Amino acid sequence: MTGTLHVVGVGPGDPELMTLKAARVIATSPVVAFFRKRGRPGHARSIAAAHVGAETEELAFEYPFTTELDVRDPRYLAEMGGFYEATARTLATRLDAGRDVALLCEGDPFFYGSAMYLFDRLGADYRSEIVPGVTGMSGCWTRAGLPMTHGDDVLAVLPATMDEDDLVTRLAACDAAVIMKLGRNLPKVRAAVERAGLTGRAVYVERGTMADEIVRPLAEVAKDRVPYFALVLIPGRRGPR
Amino acid sequence: MTGTLHVVGVGPGDPELMTLKAARVIATSPVVAFFRKRGRPGHARSIAAAHVGAETEELAFEYPFTTELDVRDPRYLAEMGGFYEATARTLATRLDAGRDVALLCEGDPFFYGSAMYLFDRLGADYRSEIVPGVTGMSGCWTRAGLPMTHGDDVLAVLPATMDEDDLVTRLAACDAAVIMKLGRNLPKVRAAVERAGLTGRAVYVERGTMADEIVRPLAEVAKDRVPYFALVLIPGRRGPR
Repeated sequence: MTGTLHVVGVGPGDPELMTLKAARVIATSPVVAFFRKRGRPGHARSIAAAHVGAETEELAFEYPFTTELDVRDPRYLAEMGGFYEATARTLATRLDAGRDVALLCEGDPFFYGSAMYLFDRLGADYRSEIVPGVTGMSGCWTRAGLPMTHGDDVLAVLPATMDEDDLVTRLAACDAAVIMKLGRNLPKVRAAVERAGLTGRAVYVERGTMADEIVRPLAEVAKDRVPYFALVLIPGRRGPR
Repeated sequence: MTGTLHVVGVGPGDPELMTLKAARVIATSPVVAFFRKRGRPGHARSIAAAHVGAETEELAFEYPFTTELDVRDPRYLAEMGGFYEATARTLATRLDAGRDVALLCEGDPFFYGSAMYLFDRLGADYRSEIVPGVTGMSGCWTRAGLPMTHGDDVLAVLPATMDEDDLVTRLAACDAAVIMKLGRNLPKVRAAVERAGLTGRAVYVERGTMADEIVRPLAEVAKDRVPYFALVLIPGRRGPR
């Protein structure tokens, strides 16, 4: 009997925003695996800390890089592919030994989650179960006090890596928008939001639901470089009032 | 001292997909309020059942209608507005008496949630706290086994009420899409997905994470009328492989 791969979303950051199921699966899995940036404790691991037992085997997988290379750089695809291959092989040894694995993932696993690349590689050969989580963007719009989408609003989730003209076009076509992965793209995003006439509604959120979160109008964010996981939120406006 | 309004997302349907925080807030609130369709127990109330104490005061608010009127019908806006006004007044009496209220909401409150209309009316006058939840769409793509968005994918969340041509245009412009609120709009959505060349990737999900969920390729769904909360999911394709 091989083990089951549980891919577990741990939510946006506040440990209390994990689901009951995530807490149970983490507490009962003999192996807990997670990604982390080199030299860091691992954000998903920190969120799950209260539920990881003392006897649990922990597997930390360190990203070869995070934001140093552009995702469209061929070296990014090649290196990350190799990293996910090696990670999948390590997880497979535990599954082959009949041990269940809980692979932690910030937010919701199937929404821009790294864990998908492991699911893609292992899901066909091993029993797997995904535990959805509260997304980072839900955590951010909640903390910003911004009801995002009403009634028949269209929501666009846009990566900040897009070209400025493309961002403007897409912002103009939707009611509500989330612009993700800001990092060094903030000046371009600021310009696109302004050209789309949306600066008055745009809110910047960094580390939403965490102790050191920052929420402020985009117009008041002066710096040009911000964390990769910071967001800009543009709430929709429709619905009965 | 007036009470606090907690707007609590209870997730997509499986009671174990509530957050730890939602469970705690529901269990400790002297008043639990929820919406329901006339003559039904209330879906959010059912999800939260294990956490509602025997001494808790329960307030059920019955929608004057659900899908009988189009949201663009002026009578819809007027009647729903009156309903939310009356509901807000009832909640205010409890808050004025110093009692905390947990207002339950399926999915995530600020993502197409009816509870936003109460927050809009009461949030300025009373302390309020929102508890985000796992969205219905996350529950659906999880159960469908569909990693939705990778890397720099653009995701569009589209209401099925849109015109067919508009749907086709927007489907062509994104990598991944969720088409919500299918109901009687399924034939139009099926045609739009086909015209956008996406039928091969489109998956239909009804009542995702619940005991009676249905997941199947859109191409195999023959009927023309389905539940209002059923979804079509079109996963993105990018990212390192």
